[in-house]
Amino acid sequence: MKTAARIGPVTLWRKKAEGTSGPVVFVPTMGALHEGHASLIRRARRLAGRKGSVVVSIFVNPTQFGPKEDLAKYPRPFAQDLALCKREGVDLLFHPTPEEMYEGDSSVKVCESSLSTGLCGASRLGHFNGVCTVVAMLFQIIRPDIAIFGEKDWQQVAVIRRMVRDLKMPVKILSHATVREEDGLALSSRNRLLSPESRLVAPRIYQALLTALMAAEAGETSVARLRRRLTSDLAVIPRTVVDYAEIVDESTLLPLQKLTPGSAARALVAVQLGSVRLIDNLGISR
Amino acid sequence: MKTAARIGPVTLWRKKAEGTSGPVVFVPTMGALHEGHASLIRRARRLAGRKGSVVVSIFVNPTQFGPKEDLAKYPRPFAQDLALCKREGVDLLFHPTPEEMYEGDSSVKVCESSLSTGLCGASRLGHFNGVCTVVAMLFQIIRPDIAIFGEKDWQQVAVIRRMVRDLKMPVKILSHATVREEDGLALSSRNRLLSPESRLVAPRIYQALLTALMAAEAGETSVARLRRRLTSDLAVIPRTVVDYAEIVDESTLLPLQKLTPGSAARALVAVQLGSVRLIDNLGISR
Repeated sequence: MKTAARIGPVTLWRKKAEGTSGPVVFVPTMGALHEGHASLIRRARRLAGRKGSVVVSIFVNPTQFGPKEDLAKYPRPFAQDLALCKREGVDLLFHPTPEEMYEGDSSVKVCESSLSTGLCGASRLGHFNGVCTVVAMLFQIIRPDIAIFGEKDWQQVAVIRRMVRDLKMPVKILSHATVREEDGLALSSRNRLLSPESRLVAPRIYQALLTALMAAEAGETSVARLRRRLTSDLAVIPRTVVDYAEIVDESTLLPLQKLTPGSAARALVAVQLGSVRLIDNLGISR
Repeated sequence: MKTAARIGPVTLWRKKAEGTSGPVVFVPTMGALHEGHASLIRRARRLAGRKGSVVVSIFVNPTQFGPKEDLAKYPRPFAQDLALCKREGVDLLFHPTPEEMYEGDSSVKVCESSLSTGLCGASRLGHFNGVCTVVAMLFQIIRPDIAIFGEKDWQQVAVIRRMVRDLKMPVKILSHATVREEDGLALSSRNRLLSPESRLVAPRIYQALLTALMAAEAGETSVARLRRRLTSDLAVIPRTVVDYAEIVDESTLLPLQKLTPGSAARALVAVQLGSVRLIDNLGISR
């Protein structure tokens, strides 16, 4: 596995990869890699095959954190991440510093103004512009044929798909199913920040989503009723503040009134559990 | 010469060009091509050599025109443009429709917040975000190794360079000297919209810039005095309203106080001449 902290060597590496016949498959991450990332990387490896390449980036992007968010305490276990990437057959690990990515007088951003206003965007101002900008930069540097994102960050996947569509980026975006603990908790690098008490009750987030799915499968079509139930199921989890609980169209993220056989609905939730903010989501079909 | 109105064929063409050893050199235009564009295209041809390719785009980008600007009356002499491109040895002419470039619910933009606020940006709100967005899109579609822009739009070149730097785009930006009529008027597609009376006095814009340069060469170092003189020289041109006349650092576009031997100063002007807005600029060295 090749590793690079600078852009120059990645550009050179990419030039050489142009001659090969397999695709360059890219998994952007903020590090603190867990089995969810490993699952993304294994999918990338399968897609790349022997002739293609798998690139992973590790970059805790400061511009997607708000001033009161957890940038400083975001976990950065680099040695473990490196070992995981080696084990999973990554070809190139790109791990730039913030200084390598951002100039002091940087003044250009990629801005999304529709999908990113609600849900996580409502409380995390500027977050998705930070995400779009850094992903656009990484796409310029790595020029992947395919990029894979985890579905736990469902809104992020929708925003990235929109960016790729609108800016005509020559990359195929794939999303990958959320990997969960045995008790249902969605894997997240932030889970390791949970107190033991919070970790114990955290699976109830997924249980609340499953309850909504079961109600929909049992015939409930009113989104207002489903959402009320979902919100109250989350609110009763100890030490929890519900940021949002919404049921929206899975692509446009626009609110739905009713579940219909044709609707591709998704329930998305964010809660503050102790000092840690967790998100999760589930497809709610009839 | 290959022509394409759709993105799909350009993507396929570009894939094939990957195998060749020469660079892909790109000249983005809004059409209504004149000798200034021809000069850019000839430079592109020289840079590409026999093994590389020259791509020209013709796209009158609606998102860089303000609601009260001249989008509808912007000249579109496509047959002549096509002939010029053929004559100059262009390999691929890309001429998309607005519908091919923009989705109805498009929501992603590239935004520049420093270099684009003054000069033309002050009166043309959103103009440079429109420029950045469409140039970013064209770069994604065409993936040029080199792109060439005319220096008449000096602020545009500075903003594009900043975008490429900040978003880490793998393209080299070259600027190309302004081509002028014999009487000094900078070539512009908008010149053909001038009334005969306006055309007659239009060269006085360049003369005002030359006067500023000569004053600087004669030892004037006060930017305030140079600028006052430049403004009054422009203001006395018949039927003219001065939009701005500034002397700034050529890269940062920030105001200067004094010309020094080390300063890379540039005078930039915009005037409304009858119903036509014209811009020009000149390096003001000591």
